[in-house]
Amino acid sequence: MAADTVTVAADELGALAAAAFVHAGVPEGDARETAEVLLVGEMMGIPTHGMIRVPEYIRRIGLGGINCSPQMRIDRRAPALAVIDADNALGPVAGLRGLAEALEMARQVGIAYAGIAESNHVGPLAPYALRACEDGMALILGTNASVTMPPWGGAAARMGNNPLCIALPNPGGPHFILDMAMSVAARGKIRRALKEGAAIPEGWAVTRDGAPTTDPAAALDGFLAPMGGHKGAGLAQAVDLLAGLLPGGAFLTAISSWIENPGAPPRTGHFFIALDAMRLRGPDYGPAMQDFLEIITATPPADPARPVLYPGLPEQRRLAAARAGGVTLPAALLEEIRGLGG
Amino acid sequence: MAADTVTVAADELGALAAAAFVHAGVPEGDARETAEVLLVGEMMGIPTHGMIRVPEYIRRIGLGGINCSPQMRIDRRAPALAVIDADNALGPVAGLRGLAEALEMARQVGIAYAGIAESNHVGPLAPYALRACEDGMALILGTNASVTMPPWGGAAARMGNNPLCIALPNPGGPHFILDMAMSVAARGKIRRALKEGAAIPEGWAVTRDGAPTTDPAAALDGFLAPMGGHKGAGLAQAVDLLAGLLPGGAFLTAISSWIENPGAPPRTGHFFIALDAMRLRGPDYGPAMQDFLEIITATPPADPARPVLYPGLPEQRRLAAARAGGVTLPAALLEEIRGLGG
Repeated sequence: MAADTVTVAADELGALAAAAFVHAGVPEGDARETAEVLLVGEMMGIPTHGMIRVPEYIRRIGLGGINCSPQMRIDRRAPALAVIDADNALGPVAGLRGLAEALEMARQVGIAYAGIAESNHVGPLAPYALRACEDGMALILGTNASVTMPPWGGAAARMGNNPLCIALPNPGGPHFILDMAMSVAARGKIRRALKEGAAIPEGWAVTRDGAPTTDPAAALDGFLAPMGGHKGAGLAQAVDLLAGLLPGGAFLTAISSWIENPGAPPRTGHFFIALDAMRLRGPDYGPAMQDFLEIITATPPADPARPVLYPGLPEQRRLAAARAGGVTLPAALLEEIRGLGG
Repeated sequence: MAADTVTVAADELGALAAAAFVHAGVPEGDARETAEVLLVGEMMGIPTHGMIRVPEYIRRIGLGGINCSPQMRIDRRAPALAVIDADNALGPVAGLRGLAEALEMARQVGIAYAGIAESNHVGPLAPYALRACEDGMALILGTNASVTMPPWGGAAARMGNNPLCIALPNPGGPHFILDMAMSVAARGKIRRALKEGAAIPEGWAVTRDGAPTTDPAAALDGFLAPMGGHKGAGLAQAVDLLAGLLPGGAFLTAISSWIENPGAPPRTGHFFIALDAMRLRGPDYGPAMQDFLEIITATPPADPARPVLYPGLPEQRRLAAARAGGVTLPAALLEEIRGLGG
């Protein structure tokens, strides 16, 4: 399949994606912002939350499942608390608004929370974290998602594989950006095993009845296993409480699936906690961070060929490489995005 | 060994532990507070962080490893940011001070962060979360710990099995309290397998060289595996950044082991982020929380004999049972605590 990929300059790809959103009825500023979030995700090596979402978002706009002209309502409940009703906006438009609110309040009082209700798929989390870090701010963020996993010990899906991201700026080099969903392995890896006729490792998934399985077909018919068992399942619930329940939005089974109901508002929720790391630690924040990250990367590796990295380092290396040398993606996807530009 | 346990009233046990701390030179208020944190941990079913720590803390006080008369310095860096230098205080004394600061600031502006540097073993996290929830506040807290785990892909320990706790109040019943360390399994479970001559499950641990193992002896000589591989390892680092680096304290390899160096200040750090959940969501917070938790507990269970629970529910049931019916602990431990009271 490698022959079917093309490499295109980042700016060009971003412009094509933005044009596609504009052609679908998205105002130009929102179109550019949405394209940029997805493009940065793609370049960081998160293609499942990258350019493939451009045609998907546009298909949902066409079905009335996303509101291109949202009237977002921002309610400051306290000096460091904001709630945003996103009016079914494009997820990145809602997410960037939440990020901006959280950063602005955190600059005033040191730390702040912004929660977004009635939103859509927010895209990859790492690009939001990267923006905060480039502003010198730490960020904790998360989103709920449509129901795919059972709570621990359960035999029916009641919660999403809700991702959590924790990021701290490193003024001297790549930032610390941990961006993780709650399953041991991504669904895409199980789909690949099915295609290749391979078994999946123990611990990745359970059958529809909750029994462990190494059969990818039974796994796809069943549920992804949460990392650490009850721990990952509990974290998925904690993220939903912060992202869904607290801002007054939908949670758990009330989140509609945009795959099954592409024309319905999914009612997704997100949260952003921004923290002024440098004001907190003071002038030696930068050297301390450098010291911390060097202790990690200087750890003797288990495999001498694979140096130890910290979260976000490989993603930011990929991003820098893609900004310089172009973004490689399936040729058919590029053509689809180009075609959507009208 | 069950014959060697005794059951004692919670109040009596708390008073005995407090008397032991007073006899070791701890001021009476601090002694009562420290005893209470450990007692609540014991009653919640976390005996590794419960009464067994009373003689351990006192042994370290005797060796000069804990300061019974700390001059804690509190520095409000912003309306919602505080840093506390705990002056090597007893961990629960420092931790409760941090909790109080975070709660007070969060009541003013909605959310607040307190970080504690130069502290000791903070005890179990769940009792702090329980106090916040009883005050109607959500709490995210964590602590760093002495070095026991490698970063992902590493073959040498560089970080602690740093626990994270996320709690949200449930006004109508047991609160949501997720309290988790980052390893797949606790070290105690591997020690038990060794005693019983049993193999441990795949995925619990790696050897000293980083290779997977099911041999409990090789596991104890090696390292606990982090849940979700790079995810759990990354979370342990994120907790250390929030608990150690941000408050200006020690992190990673700078945390001294209180087992190997019981007379040295371990320089442990903790963080508390308090959030005014009810001010954020408004008057329907309680019903929404009830709804959320009922969706979880109403999930069809994989094993009909084991209903689905949410994080914190079994712990708070155990706590209520122990408050009513007494605390069961090893007879030898009770005698040791009694003896330490002078």
